[in-house]
Amino acid sequence: MKQKRYFLAEDEIPRYWYNIQADMKTKPLPPLHPATKQALKAEDLYPIFAKECCNQEMNQIDPWIQIPDDVREAYKFYRSTPLVRAYALEKALGTPAHIYFKNESVSPMGSHKLNSAIPQAYYCRQEGITNITTETGAGQWGASLAYAASMFGIDSAVYQVKISYEQKPYRRSIMQTFGAQVTPSPSMSTRAGKDILTAHPNHQGSLGTAISEAVELARTTPNCKYCLGSVLNHVALHQTIIGLEAEKQMEMAGEYPDIVIACFGGGSNFGGLAFPFMRHVIAAEKGKDHTRFIAAEPASCPKLTRGEFRYDFGDEAGYTPLLPMYTLGHNFAPANIHAGGLRYHGAGVIVSQLLKDKMMEAVDIDQLESFQAGTLFARAEGIIPAPESCHAIAATIREALRCKETGEEKVILFNLSGHGLVDMASYDKFLAGDLQNHSLSDEDLSRTLAEIEPLQP
Amino acid sequence: MKQKRYFLAEDEIPRYWYNIQADMKTKPLPPLHPATKQALKAEDLYPIFAKECCNQEMNQIDPWIQIPDDVREAYKFYRSTPLVRAYALEKALGTPAHIYFKNESVSPMGSHKLNSAIPQAYYCRQEGITNITTETGAGQWGASLAYAASMFGIDSAVYQVKISYEQKPYRRSIMQTFGAQVTPSPSMSTRAGKDILTAHPNHQGSLGTAISEAVELARTTPNCKYCLGSVLNHVALHQTIIGLEAEKQMEMAGEYPDIVIACFGGGSNFGGLAFPFMRHVIAAEKGKDHTRFIAAEPASCPKLTRGEFRYDFGDEAGYTPLLPMYTLGHNFAPANIHAGGLRYHGAGVIVSQLLKDKMMEAVDIDQLESFQAGTLFARAEGIIPAPESCHAIAATIREALRCKETGEEKVILFNLSGHGLVDMASYDKFLAGDLQNHSLSDEDLSRTLAEIEPLQP
Repeated sequence: MKQKRYFLAEDEIPRYWYNIQADMKTKPLPPLHPATKQALKAEDLYPIFAKECCNQEMNQIDPWIQIPDDVREAYKFYRSTPLVRAYALEKALGTPAHIYFKNESVSPMGSHKLNSAIPQAYYCRQEGITNITTETGAGQWGASLAYAASMFGIDSAVYQVKISYEQKPYRRSIMQTFGAQVTPSPSMSTRAGKDILTAHPNHQGSLGTAISEAVELARTTPNCKYCLGSVLNHVALHQTIIGLEAEKQMEMAGEYPDIVIACFGGGSNFGGLAFPFMRHVIAAEKGKDHTRFIAAEPASCPKLTRGEFRYDFGDEAGYTPLLPMYTLGHNFAPANIHAGGLRYHGAGVIVSQLLKDKMMEAVDIDQLESFQAGTLFARAEGIIPAPESCHAIAATIREALRCKETGEEKVILFNLSGHGLVDMASYDKFLAGDLQNHSLSDEDLSRTLAEIEPLQP
Repeated sequence: MKQKRYFLAEDEIPRYWYNIQADMKTKPLPPLHPATKQALKAEDLYPIFAKECCNQEMNQIDPWIQIPDDVREAYKFYRSTPLVRAYALEKALGTPAHIYFKNESVSPMGSHKLNSAIPQAYYCRQEGITNITTETGAGQWGASLAYAASMFGIDSAVYQVKISYEQKPYRRSIMQTFGAQVTPSPSMSTRAGKDILTAHPNHQGSLGTAISEAVELARTTPNCKYCLGSVLNHVALHQTIIGLEAEKQMEMAGEYPDIVIACFGGGSNFGGLAFPFMRHVIAAEKGKDHTRFIAAEPASCPKLTRGEFRYDFGDEAGYTPLLPMYTLGHNFAPANIHAGGLRYHGAGVIVSQLLKDKMMEAVDIDQLESFQAGTLFARAEGIIPAPESCHAIAATIREALRCKETGEEKVILFNLSGHGLVDMASYDKFLAGDLQNHSLSDEDLSRTLAEIEPLQP
C-alpha cells in the first residue's frame, strides 16, 4: 500500500500561464458576431466579460501571460496540488505502466474550477464590477465562482442546470453558503428561459440554457459581467497552471508522460493539463515530441468523436458569438448522465482546431464504464473521484491494460479534476445497479446537427 | 486576501506517537470489568480489540510509541496536513490575535479520523483478522475505517447512528463505495438493538447504541474485532500525529500557541492536537508552560461542563468496561444536533483526568453559534467546516474577540478536524433559518445521571 506525492515549493508555483494560441501552427479562426457574421475583436466582447479576459481570449501573440500577484496569493490557498504516483492502482490493474495523476480535488471547492474562478473574479473586481453571473452544471464551477466572488467582495448569481440542481442539492448549498443566488435553469427569470420553457415545458436544462440566462442577466444588469467556467480560450489559459506544475513535478519524479489524459466537457481541464506538454510537441523537442493527448468524453455527449467542426453558438438561445468548434448542435439536449460537467454540446475553439489538426485524440466512455473505473480508483487510491473525472480514469485504465498486453512501461498522466464527495447520490445509484448507459442514435444526432447555422469555417 | 500554509518534508513526518499517560502526574484510573468490577488488564480486552491496541490502551510507561512503517507509508497519502495562518479570518474579526489552524480536512475521507483508522486496521490485519466492525455517528469515522479496511483487504461492517444515517446519506454511500456493510442503529440485527428498540421504538440512535451493536457483532463473529473511533486512549494516541506535526509547523512559523482549541466528542481530535503541546506544560518547560487548552463541546451534550466524573459504561447496553470519566449517563439521549460526531455521553479517560486536574478547560457552544462561526470561517478561508469543527471555530472566535477587547496578540491554534462538504444539508437548514438551539434542563440531566452505576472513582 503505497502512494508517492510530489509538491512544489511556494516559489516554484508558476508565475505565468501558458497561451498555446501563440505557438499553434494553425491559429484558431475568429469567433463571429451572431447577427452580422463579422469576425469579432476583443473589444466586441467587453460588454459581456472582464476586459482582461477578452484580451486574453483573442491573444495569439504572447505565449506567456503573467499571473497577477493577488491571484498567485489566492492560488497558494491550495496550490501546488500534488502530483501522485498511483502505485496501488497500477497494482490493482497488474499493469507495467506508470500511472500518475494530478490531484486537483484538493482545492477547497473540490475541483480545478477555482483556477479560473479566482482570476475571473479578480479581473472583474479590478475593473470595478460589483456583480457577476454565470452558469453551472454539476456545480463545481458555480461553487468555485461563488467562493472567488466572496473572496473579492463581489455579489454572484448562478444559473444551475435544472437536472443537476435536483441531482446535486449539496452543491447548491455550497454556493449559497458563499452568499450566491442560485436559480435552476431554464427558469422564468429571463427572456431566454421563458422562451425555452414555452417551447419545451419539461426541459431538464443544459449548460446551453444556463449560459443563455446568465448572459442575458449580465447584459441587462448594471455593473455586472458574465463569467464562463470552460470552453473559452482564457479559461483554458488559466487552467494551464495544472500542466505547468505537473511538468515540474514529473521532472521531480524523473519521468516524462507518454500519454496525457483528461475528461472533456468544454476543454478547460483537458487543455489545462495538456497544453503545457503539447508545446514541446509543437516545438518538436527531442524526447518530448512523442506524447499522445487523449480527451475522454461521455458516449452520450460525443462532440469530439461524433460531432462536426462547424461555426455554432455556445448557448441554446443563440446569444453568444458563433464559435468554430466541434459541436453536436447548440440545441442538443444531452442525456441525464451524472457527469453534469460534461453535458455540453460543443468543444473549445483551441481544442477543436488541435483535434482537426490531429494534435490530439478523443475517446468516448459509457456511464457504467466511468463509474466502474471510479470505484476501482477509489478503493485503490482512497479518493472518490467526481463523475466527470471518472471518464479520465476509465480512459487511463484502457491504456494501462493495453500496456499490460504489450508489456510496455508507458508513463500515463491523467488529471483528477475533482472529487466526488458531493456526488455520492450518483455512486449510490451505481452501487444499487440503477445507472444505465445512454446511447445516442445517428438519427437523433443528425437532427440537432441539421439545425446548426449553415456557415462553414 | 492572504493565507499562509506550512508543510513538513516527508522525512519530517513523525515516526512516533506521543503517549501522554506516561507523563501524567496523576495517572488515569483503570477501567473495571462490567460484572466483577475488578480492574482490567490489557489482556482482558484482547477478545474485543486488536492486541496491540489493548497494549497501547493500558501503557502508562512509554511516552513514545513507534508508528509502524506501513502505517507511516499510508499516512503519506495525505500527511503532513497543512498548518494554516488564517489571515482572512483575523481580518474579518478585526482581532490582533494570530489564528492558526491544523487542516485535517485534507484527508481523502475529509477528517482526522483516518489517523486512527489506518493503524487500527493495520494491527487487525497483522493479527490475521478478516472482519472488523465499528460504530459511527456523522460517518466521518465509519468512512475512514471502511477505507482503511479496504486498504488492508479486510471486510468491514458499520453501525451508523440512525439519525445521522438519515441526515447524512452521502456518508453511507461513501462507506458503501469502499465495500462496507452499513446498518442504521439501533437495528434488529443484534440483541442489544432489539432490546433498545423494544424499550424505545422511536429511538433515534446514539453512539452509545451503535457501540453496543458493533461490540456484540464482534463478540459473536469469528475472526472479527471491534474498532472504536474516539474515547479510548489508543485512539487519542494515534491522533497525536496532529499535534506533533503542528508543533514542528508552528516552529516554522516562528510562533508558539498561547491557546489550543479543538471540538470535543470523545476527545480524540482534542487530545491529538493538545497532548503534544501539553507535555511541555507537564514538564514546566520555560516559555511553553503557559498554554491553555480548551475543549469545545455542544451545549446540548455537555459532559465536560455539566457532567459528573464517575465510573460509567461507554455504551448504552452496558457491554463495555466501566470507565472513569466525565459523563452524562450512558442512557443520555442527546438532541438531534447536526454535529453527529459530538453526540456522545462521555469523555475519554485521559481527558477526564486532565480536566479533573485542571490541566485543561471546557466551553459549551450552542448549535446556532457553531454554524454562524462555520459560515464566517468558510467565507474567509474558503473551507466549509464540518459541523463538529464549527464548535472549535466558535470557541476560537470567542477568544479572538477577547483579544480584540484587550489588544493582546495571542497565538491561537485550533484543529479543523474535518470539512463539511458532505454535511451541506445542515448548512442548508441553517441558511434557511430552520436550525435551533437545544437546551438541556437540569431535570433531564439529573435523570440519566441518576442511572449511573453507584461506583465512585
